[in-house]
Order: sequence, then structure tokens, then C-alpha cells
Amino acid sequence: MTKKPLILVTNDDGITAPGLRLLIDVMTELGDVIVVAPDSPQSATGHAITINNTLQINKISRDKDSTVEYSCSGTPVDCVKIAVHEILKCKPDLCVSGINHGSNSSINVIYSGTMSAAVEGGIEGIPSIGFSLLDYNWDADFEPTRNFVKKIASEVLKNGLPQGVILNVNFPKLKENQMKGIKVCRQAKAIWEERFDKRQTPMGKDYYWLSGEFVNLDKGEDTDEWALANGYVSIVPVQFDLTAHHAIQTINNWEL
Amino acid sequence: MTKKPLILVTNDDGITAPGLRLLIDVMTELGDVIVVAPDSPQSATGHAITINNTLQINKISRDKDSTVEYSCSGTPVDCVKIAVHEILKCKPDLCVSGINHGSNSSINVIYSGTMSAAVEGGIEGIPSIGFSLLDYNWDADFEPTRNFVKKIASEVLKNGLPQGVILNVNFPKLKENQMKGIKVCRQAKAIWEERFDKRQTPMGKDYYWLSGEFVNLDKGEDTDEWALANGYVSIVPVQFDLTAHHAIQTINNWEL
Repeated sequence: MTKKPLILVTNDDGITAPGLRLLIDVMTELGDVIVVAPDSPQSATGHAITINNTLQINKISRDKDSTVEYSCSGTPVDCVKIAVHEILKCKPDLCVSGINHGSNSSINVIYSGTMSAAVEGGIEGIPSIGFSLLDYNWDADFEPTRNFVKKIASEVLKNGLPQGVILNVNFPKLKENQMKGIKVCRQAKAIWEERFDKRQTPMGKDYYWLSGEFVNLDKGEDTDEWALANGYVSIVPVQFDLTAHHAIQTINNWEL
Repeated sequence: MTKKPLILVTNDDGITAPGLRLLIDVMTELGDVIVVAPDSPQSATGHAITINNTLQINKISRDKDSTVEYSCSGTPVDCVKIAVHEILKCKPDLCVSGINHGSNSSINVIYSGTMSAAVEGGIEGIPSIGFSLLDYNWDADFEPTRNFVKKIASEVLKNGLPQGVILNVNFPKLKENQMKGIKVCRQAKAIWEERFDKRQTPMGKDYYWLSGEFVNLDKGEDTDEWALANGYVSIVPVQFDLTAHHAIQTINNWEL
């Protein structure tokens, strides 16, 4: 009998999020699952870690199945670190993060706690995937993603991932039979055009809410934005070697 | 008369940090300076942004010079966004972040609030540089970096930067005459081997401090770690297109 793979599940929307529940459900079909997820929502925390404060973890008892779950007071990246180095004290065979309530395509990858958790898994040398659905609603329907999630995770368990590579998977908000398939893509060149919504406290002091509009400046048909807009599931392989190798020669020509 | 460049200065150690003061001092020699920096230390906040809370800014009066300074309740990335879109309502000619108290070389770039602020500047299309000194002490001596900071910032103002490229500059903890020069490098493959220091509250509940040891696994002599260990100032050009282009073909061969 082959040993079942050990799968670490986390997210950034917190341990109570519906997207996490579907991911746990699918992963229990593929292996032994341990969940270490934030005890509160941690969207847009990026690759933040907790170095000036303490971390607490709480084991959560669930009668209905044997999955072990922990809530953690830290960020998504903290969850991965404490799962590997304190709870498991070993590297799982797979780390999955999500399913995020909302898109992490294009530039969103850099702000995303979901993807940062997956990237941290990759830094630890664990094959890792972040999953996100283009629907910010808490009661979003994650069911259409189920078979895709299982297929993609199975392929990663079977093939592994190239060293230093993590998958950023995004799902369009469609019924399963409306999704046209999977496209492996590059990150689109898109930006947020920010606005700050200026308001006043009851005491008359100004404060601001970050707001803005997502603008895709990239007409390429090989991007995640194109795939999603055209009914495909997008997979972008991402890396944590941030070196802009192509720029080294340019800068070497400066008078430094 | 040529118009003086407008320079945005920020950091992650907070507006009172000595490293920020030296950076402001140098930048006032190169242009008109506006400072928007966190009102409290924000180390290791990565690319976090504040979307579930409000932001406050406070204009700080300083008699000794004409530099306009704002403290901001948010993260380093929030500081750049609110500086550009609310305070300035225009793009500065240069965005500099730091000088960080502590290294942001190799994998540290991904956790760093200093570098994330610079990367956010790059996303906004502003030539941007993050500066860090390999000395975590609050009373670290930043003076040896002064001429290098001025030279690198001047070159960026003169040449611009390739689209989507940001500079990650690190200084060894040396006297100026001990520094051998500047090397343009790639990000070393180095990791943190994490440990969690487990303690108990007075009430008997476990809690943890993240701890660990930095390990350089990369023997290359073209890396930032090599340059710094050998007495050079390191410059790594970094990018926010995280696509692992080399992995697209591999994944396209899977049964998806």
C-alpha cells in the first residue's frame, strides 16, 4: 500500500471561510490533511510575518472527520512556517492555499496573503499551489471549482514542480460546464488605479479608505486576465527569485 | 534653470528611524523631498496593504528645513499609495525607501517592508530604490553609505530604470574606505531555517516567537550575499512580474 501524501491546507480569509472548507474537502480525497489557517481574515497581508509579536495556535476539535485543524493568530505566511517547523516538524508533500474569495490574478499576486502562503511553501521546498475564485462574496459558490482543484493538485502530487516554482490558480465565476478548460499563462500587466475615499471622524479628523479600479493594460492572449475573461481557469507559475536578470547588464553600464 | 526632481522618501522602520533621516538628508541635495513614512515600525510587513481598516496621515512641522513630512498609520506600501494618489496627486520623479536597519539581501527581499514600498513605487511606474544596511542596531552608523546612496540615486535620476525594474541596494557594515565598490548582482538562493521559541504565559498557555538562522546555500560569486560578504555594496534589480516563464512549457506537458 502506498503511503498517503501529507497535505497542508491554509488560506488568508481565515479558518471559518467557505473557500477553505471546499479545499479541505477535496484534499481529504487525495491524502492526509492538516489545516493551519489564520484565526481572523488576513486578506492583502502579502508576505508579512510576525516578528515583533507572539504567535498563538489553537487545536480545533471536529467530530465529523479525522482532519486535524489549528487556528493561528498570525499571517498566512506565519501559518505555513509554524505548521512546518513547530506543528508537523516535517515538510508536507503538498501545500495548498485558498480557495480565496476574490481574484489573485495579475498584479494581485503580490498583495495576496493566499498566494504569499503558497510562495512560502515554495520557499520551504514544498510543492505549493494557491487557488482563488473571482467572486468576493462570502457565500460564493465554490462547487464548480471542485474537479479542477482535484485535477491540478493531483498533477502536482504526481509530477512535482520545478524548483522555486509555485502555481497561482484562478477560477472564473462560472458554472463548471461553462468553464472551457485550463490555460497555463503569464501574469498580465495590469494595475490598480487607486483612489482614497476621504471621510471625517465624528471629531472632525480626516481619515481615508483605500479604494480603486483594476485596469488591465495588457492585450496579450497568453495572460491570466485573458484566460479568465474568456472562460478558462488560469495557472500562472510564479517564482520568488525576484532578480530582473535582463536588467543586470543595463545597470552595469552605469557610472557606478 | 532645470526643474528640481521631486523625490518621495519612505521606509518601514517608521518616521523616527535614523536610517530615514540620512536618506532624507542625501535626497535634499538632489531634489525637492516629500516624506511619507509609517508612524510606527513596520518591519517584515511585506507587501501588505490596509483594506479592512482606515488610514490616517499627520503632517509634521519641522522648523530646520523646508521638507514636508507626513506620518501614516498604514504599511510602507500604503505610504507610497497615499503619497502618490492623495498627498501629491502626481508621480514623483524618484521613490526611495530606507535606509533599512538590517539586511534585505537574497530572500529577505520578499518579507521586507522597505523593499515592498520600493516595489510599489515601481508598480506605479516611478523609478524606485530600496536601501538597507547590514546592521540591525537603532544606533547603526549610516554615514559610510552617504556617498554611495547619492551616487546610485543620481544615476537612477539620470538614466531612469528599465520598465518594471526596482533596485534593491544593500550595504555591508563597514567604514566607507573599507567598502570595495558596487556590484550588480542576482538574488542569492538563501533561506531562513526557522525555529519557534515556545514559552508560556503567566496563565500557562503556550505561545511562540518566530526565530531562526539565515543560511546561504548559494556558492555563486555573482550573488548579493557574495558581494556583501566580500566588502561590496550590492545592487539587485528586482521585478514584480513573478511569472516563472521557464516553467510554462513544463506545466503545459501535464494532463490538464
